[in-house]
Amino acid sequence: MRVMGVDPGLTRCGLSLIETGKGRTVTALDVDVVRTPADMELAQRLLMIADAAEYWMDTHKPNAVAIERVFSQLNVRTAMGTAQAGGVVALAAARRGIPVAFHTPSQVKSAVTGNGAADKNQVTTMVTRILGLQVKPTPADAADALALAICHCWRAPMLERMAQAEAAALEQKKRYEAKVAQVRKEARVR
Amino acid sequence: MRVMGVDPGLTRCGLSLIETGKGRTVTALDVDVVRTPADMELAQRLLMIADAAEYWMDTHKPNAVAIERVFSQLNVRTAMGTAQAGGVVALAAARRGIPVAFHTPSQVKSAVTGNGAADKNQVTTMVTRILGLQVKPTPADAADALALAICHCWRAPMLERMAQAEAAALEQKKRYEAKVAQVRKEARVR
Repeated sequence: MRVMGVDPGLTRCGLSLIETGKGRTVTALDVDVVRTPADMELAQRLLMIADAAEYWMDTHKPNAVAIERVFSQLNVRTAMGTAQAGGVVALAAARRGIPVAFHTPSQVKSAVTGNGAADKNQVTTMVTRILGLQVKPTPADAADALALAICHCWRAPMLERMAQAEAAALEQKKRYEAKVAQVRKEARVR
Repeated sequence: MRVMGVDPGLTRCGLSLIETGKGRTVTALDVDVVRTPADMELAQRLLMIADAAEYWMDTHKPNAVAIERVFSQLNVRTAMGTAQAGGVVALAAARRGIPVAFHTPSQVKSAVTGNGAADKNQVTTMVTRILGLQVKPTPADAADALALAICHCWRAPMLERMAQAEAAALEQKKRYEAKVAQVRKEARVR
């Protein structure tokens, strides 16, 4: 499975590509950071990011796109820009029929370091170790994009099993309710 | 000038088209609300909104797209969705070379009612009156999209004049600084 990881942002948007191997083995295929100038119009900045993400998707053909879910940030304006950058990447994936998953920063940190509150340095160190890289990926956005893709590779099978279990439980509940309704109906008929 | 107004949102996204006439005359050409189901995946919802906005742009060929600028909302999750919906519409406009402008809710309210803190009812009433509509536009998202386009029609010439004045001031400042530098240089040479 090839997973594209995206650390969204207007000023710096991290893009990464990871391939899964046997078990928990993951290999980094590519990583890059798209930058857009702060004095450029918002719509043009989004266009630059969308163009870069689409080029990656068309070149690397990922099986899934994992994007960081933004909940809140200290700066509301930055948070909006981050959400919009993530939105245009999600749109590009949807247009190509590539499934999109969102992971929160704490899910990503927890997946790669075992601690949901780990700092940037710890994340970078673990990403470097997990992928067996010679040098630490910089800037932090590149490391984050790699961490996101790793998190998706490891969480995706678990999420799939959970979704299957939930669907099975729902199915069982429906069957049970149908049975109860049937019994009640028969009781009324007698 | 034809202006497309957008009141962004994931659940309901208002779209409107307004044409300017002489002076402050504005005519409504079209208005609609795009709805996406809450249980649909985010990427698919953004795709539905982007498709609708692109269809509008290709059909109506607006000269400008005016989108509501989201600063903050009580619900952070809703605010993110709103920002993303606005982002994909801005992207669609940028791809077509259509200029995009953002106006804050208070700028819109102030433009149509004269009061930046007007309530939804007041905005709807004024939009109905300004456009000479037979019935009030519903839901509120439709009225808001119309208000946004009206706001843009009235603010755009002013913003353009301001931009020209600022550019002229900057040009003058540069000329002045060049002159000062020239005088200093000559003073040193002597």
